[in-house]
Amino acid sequence: MKGYAMLSLGKTGWIEKEKPACGPLDAIVRPIAIAPCTSDIHTVWSGALGERKDMILGHESIGIVDEVGSLVRDFSPGDKVIVPAITPDWNSVEAQSGYSMHSGGMLAGWKFSNFKDGVFAEFYHVNDADGNLALLPEGMELRAACMLCDMIPTGFHGAELADIQYGDEVAVIGIGPVGLMSVAASVLKGASRVFAVGTRPNCVALAKEFGATDIISYREGAIDEQILEKTSKKGVDKVIIAGGDNDTFAEAVRMLKPGGKIGNVNYLGEGESISIPRVDWGVGMGHKSINGGLMPGGRLRMEKLAKLISTGRIHPEKMVTHEFRGFDGIEQALMLMKDKPKDLIKPIVIIED
Amino acid sequence: MKGYAMLSLGKTGWIEKEKPACGPLDAIVRPIAIAPCTSDIHTVWSGALGERKDMILGHESIGIVDEVGSLVRDFSPGDKVIVPAITPDWNSVEAQSGYSMHSGGMLAGWKFSNFKDGVFAEFYHVNDADGNLALLPEGMELRAACMLCDMIPTGFHGAELADIQYGDEVAVIGIGPVGLMSVAASVLKGASRVFAVGTRPNCVALAKEFGATDIISYREGAIDEQILEKTSKKGVDKVIIAGGDNDTFAEAVRMLKPGGKIGNVNYLGEGESISIPRVDWGVGMGHKSINGGLMPGGRLRMEKLAKLISTGRIHPEKMVTHEFRGFDGIEQALMLMKDKPKDLIKPIVIIED
Amino acid sequence: MKGYAMLSLGKTGWIEKEKPACGPLDAIVRPIAIAPCTSDIHTVWSGALGERKDMILGHESIGIVDEVGSLVRDFSPGDKVIVPAITPDWNSVEAQSGYSMHSGGMLAGWKFSNFKDGVFAEFYHVNDADGNLALLPEGMELRAACMLCDMIPTGFHGAELADIQYGDEVAVIGIGPVGLMSVAASVLKGASRVFAVGTRPNCVALAKEFGATDIISYREGAIDEQILEKTSKKGVDKVIIAGGDNDTFAEAVRMLKPGGKIGNVNYLGEGESISIPRVDWGVGMGHKSINGGLMPGGRLRMEKLAKLISTGRIHPEKMVTHEFRGFDGIEQALMLMKDKPKDLIKPIVIIED
Amino acid sequence: MKGYAMLSLGKTGWIEKEKPACGPLDAIVRPIAIAPCTSDIHTVWSGALGERKDMILGHESIGIVDEVGSLVRDFSPGDKVIVPAITPDWNSVEAQSGYSMHSGGMLAGWKFSNFKDGVFAEFYHVNDADGNLALLPEGMELRAACMLCDMIPTGFHGAELADIQYGDEVAVIGIGPVGLMSVAASVLKGASRVFAVGTRPNCVALAKEFGATDIISYREGAIDEQILEKTSKKGVDKVIIAGGDNDTFAEAVRMLKPGGKIGNVNYLGEGESISIPRVDWGVGMGHKSINGGLMPGGRLRMEKLAKLISTGRIHPEKMVTHEFRGFDGIEQALMLMKDKPKDLIKPIVIIED
Repeated sequence: MKGYAMLSLGKTGWIEKEKPACGPLDAIVRPIAIAPCTSDIHTVWSGALGERKDMILGHESIGIVDEVGSLVRDFSPGDKVIVPAITPDWNSVEAQSGYSMHSGGMLAGWKFSNFKDGVFAEFYHVNDADGNLALLPEGMELRAACMLCDMIPTGFHGAELADIQYGDEVAVIGIGPVGLMSVAASVLKGASRVFAVGTRPNCVALAKEFGATDIISYREGAIDEQILEKTSKKGVDKVIIAGGDNDTFAEAVRMLKPGGKIGNVNYLGEGESISIPRVDWGVGMGHKSINGGLMPGGRLRMEKLAKLISTGRIHPEKMVTHEFRGFDGIEQALMLMKDKPKDLIKPIVIIED
Repeated sequence: MKGYAMLSLGKTGWIEKEKPACGPLDAIVRPIAIAPCTSDIHTVWSGALGERKDMILGHESIGIVDEVGSLVRDFSPGDKVIVPAITPDWNSVEAQSGYSMHSGGMLAGWKFSNFKDGVFAEFYHVNDADGNLALLPEGMELRAACMLCDMIPTGFHGAELADIQYGDEVAVIGIGPVGLMSVAASVLKGASRVFAVGTRPNCVALAKEFGATDIISYREGAIDEQILEKTSKKGVDKVIIAGGDNDTFAEAVRMLKPGGKIGNVNYLGEGESISIPRVDWGVGMGHKSINGGLMPGGRLRMEKLAKLISTGRIHPEKMVTHEFRGFDGIEQALMLMKDKPKDLIKPIVIIED
Repeated sequence: MKGYAMLSLGKTGWIEKEKPACGPLDAIVRPIAIAPCTSDIHTVWSGALGERKDMILGHESIGIVDEVGSLVRDFSPGDKVIVPAITPDWNSVEAQSGYSMHSGGMLAGWKFSNFKDGVFAEFYHVNDADGNLALLPEGMELRAACMLCDMIPTGFHGAELADIQYGDEVAVIGIGPVGLMSVAASVLKGASRVFAVGTRPNCVALAKEFGATDIISYREGAIDEQILEKTSKKGVDKVIIAGGDNDTFAEAVRMLKPGGKIGNVNYLGEGESISIPRVDWGVGMGHKSINGGLMPGGRLRMEKLAKLISTGRIHPEKMVTHEFRGFDGIEQALMLMKDKPKDLIKPIVIIED
Repeated sequence: MKGYAMLSLGKTGWIEKEKPACGPLDAIVRPIAIAPCTSDIHTVWSGALGERKDMILGHESIGIVDEVGSLVRDFSPGDKVIVPAITPDWNSVEAQSGYSMHSGGMLAGWKFSNFKDGVFAEFYHVNDADGNLALLPEGMELRAACMLCDMIPTGFHGAELADIQYGDEVAVIGIGPVGLMSVAASVLKGASRVFAVGTRPNCVALAKEFGATDIISYREGAIDEQILEKTSKKGVDKVIIAGGDNDTFAEAVRMLKPGGKIGNVNYLGEGESISIPRVDWGVGMGHKSINGGLMPGGRLRMEKLAKLISTGRIHPEKMVTHEFRGFDGIEQALMLMKDKPKDLIKPIVIIED
């Protein structure tokens, strides 16, 4: 079968591989939609995961079940399914402790295009089909559904990690597709004011549409100072970090009230360490909690988030700015992601309707 | 001064009383808007609190500070303020344990028209002004603001007690003004499907506007059976009880998944006990948690919920179906609440704009 | 193979069955220690689960792995293992939602001697060996280890459901082996005073040894009144129900402070319903939370609780009052459990050392 | 009246001041026992709080009420009381949000020897007596009681921030008096193995007595490597930081499992920032939560922790290695704290028995 792969650091291309084999608990899936992710770009061109050779890329896909293992109860060939980016081993001790994304080791619930071939292929392998697939609800648009694989669960996890409560004032730093979903997620956890930090015009417009009440731009000064200014020097109750870099944490700590919480869902690709400013962190005693975590995956999560689309609570399809048709569109979509034109939020490739 | 009072069980009328005295921590407030509440009706005509003599009624009011005690830091005469129905003693051990509404004894954070004169008077007394008042935000409509005293915090507390999570399917039993706010609160905690149980046409219309996806009517059969039917016999994740009677709990248990939670905010005015069906409750082991609690009051709560109005997350003013003008309108508004005409959701009396 | 079974309602005896087959994820285990449980008695003589025919009894056992399926990674024949009474399907949506004990339906994580043959057999089948078995730590006494299957996790779950915090005053109603473990668990969650409700002398002695500070006897009056008396009419912060009957809940509600929590781990075998007294429950608004749940099972739970034995935090072996030797001792042990002589706390059968 | 004060940076001495005035909510207290704290040393000799002039030192004291304000309900002159180091304003929005220690600003619940005169005086002022004092239980030893002011609540808060659960393996870094209390607190939240990091022989001995299972010394290599070694490279579930410096956080992150939590209660007196190692922190996605907070004070907290002494759950008096008698002993005790002889854990001054 054909797949689009990282050939080596900095190099991608089409390759031929064997169709993956299906174990007793597994499914083999054929993609009908895929989306490239910034982390595919980091993987190839920044070496975020280190060297990989001929590894098929991609971890966001909606597909059709092609084959299931003998122990799979709930899925059959022909089923249209949502495939989460994170596919844990559900009987691991980590999953039993509530951290399925770290099953088998830190971040090891992330398998596609990390430890094994990803979804940019004619077929891909899904471990534990019953635990990790979810049926695509009848009539759900592929552009919305495909955001369920990573953008929605990651963005929403930011709001969970920040533990937003009714009436909280929240800052969302970064309004790419993940941050935009964090804005929507903040509103759906009861945030009042939402300060969205970003500058690209269509992201700003969508942030407002998703519920941001204030837009903060780096270009107009330090973001923590701007936010302190707008909150009578009190700061916000919670911060979601969905962009920026290692220095963003110091800004987040400074703009946060005592008792506040930071939820990071930004992949920190570079640098030795994150610096927490001692005094602003209350000399270690300010109850400014710093949290960061990989999105929870698996079937239940997909089912529950899919219902937020079905009931009209979120409109993730609005983030899809570029659509390609046909399997070969994968290359173009990925390159678009790499080039990041000004009007890009998220590209998608529709392979079959 | 003049006040509208419960003269004795079953009897109300205007009375004259001394203007209340202001202690060092307190404020004396003059109402500019008030709303009667179903519990005023229960207090007078069902004897819910037992006998009371010449007690001024009412616990929902927006007002203007007339006088403050010597220790009050943050409020001055002339300030427009939101006055919550529940005004705890914030230094009590109960408040320190997180249950301020029970400061001084179970439910004893509820003082207006319970232990002391209420707000249907030319002036009323607010204990701990700094802890219990909140400034009325500039430009906030009185019809919206007045719902902050009780309807919004009570309805929202239902969603907190039910511990709603992203994607949860939720049943809200009862869609009077509290239940309607529970519907809005469910959406603002991430509910997907919301089953609203009720029949009055304008309540049904508003429930839909506030986010209910399914309307369930008692007239079409047992509500638990209807909800089980609509959820493939799985039941809902959470139930908020904002109406009904003691038997509602059995229905709630039956329509709930294992691991689900019930949040009751309905005042149970009659009967000896609530019955929990043993088998449906998993022979005591089904993890169907039963919770019920009085709304949290106080300043912070008012400030945070007020921001949900300011930022347009909720539109409580839509529940106000009847508006009276002038202090004397209190009597009519209360009688309207007693008679409950078909088109009533919530009446309000605007005393000064 | 031979097994001791419920032949039909009210009848038990030895039967012959085929050795169970081992699926790819499963293990076949040979018991080296077993213990009968009160629920075995309820199953046979009270018909708690309804009719069962020739179902092998028992769900508490330590064993040796005899055979494992092809997909089992972490266990091999010859391993000594702890087998929890509850063996969930870890990839189910219920387990993913944090309620593994209800995987596949309410209480359906309980499989042994409920939906399938139990452990009173020469061999028994364990589903999902990697998810449900734990290695028996080197040198751990079988009398202690065998309490890990059900008595410890059930007793400890009571303290979790009651959400005990530092300094809480706690009532533990019932001090059979589960209640005794709830006493120990209360101390290990930071309880200060622990009121243990029971009368049998050796249970009382052990309750004190495990940390009870006050012993309350039904024989000296209503237990709620006694506890209110001893707490200056304030009541306790939390209640664990580990015995009694449906009426125990009303007592628990009455002895509980507002903001308190009840954690039930008692199997409620009879009656139509549980009655919650309306007024004592704060007319639905007293924040007295009522919780009840089946113990969490699985590998992680066994490993973590086993460490509490290894580190000397708990001494469950002290509850074993009667020890039988050899496989045939199962019948005697079960009959002893049925007869409940005055000095019985928990019997055990050591099959191999 | 006489008091022992920080005269200026680096200088201490006895001074004369007016006896403090008593507001309507306040109490004036006469100390019967006091203890100096490491933070007194930091305040004077490291300038941790900046310049202070003639500020009476000390925040740990048991006393006798000398005078109460007109609004104080629950205390009278002559009452023996526990006075917590942290005395919040309970009606502040910060206290209402659950962070009373930050009432009026970050860390501003800490008033004694920070914003106002401390307890090393013939009399001292306590704001909000009902909210902040607790009655000294009859018969409680002063050496134990005096540890309730700061050492116990701070040490216990470490275990709360680290969110210890049954069976968790915990590292406690630093075993001075606070860390020793964190060891005891870990056991009383259900920890199994407790790795205590420290070297002073009497601290090590007491750590073992309080429940540490493993002692780790900096002298034998990097502490994170030692702990990883002892946990099969898995790391611990939780870390409490009760000593060390800014670099301790990096060690804590490295020795922690994904899904683990750090609870810091160490005052970070120097340096620009704390460094979190990016890769060990899971590139921002490892769910290693970093928390730090000032102890909760107030009446309820004192009452609840006092009960842990009364019921014999903790034995803080064992930490008192040096006892002085009489008011003038304050100077010696403080100088001892400054000099930190090898056998010192905690000194106390008994003024009246």
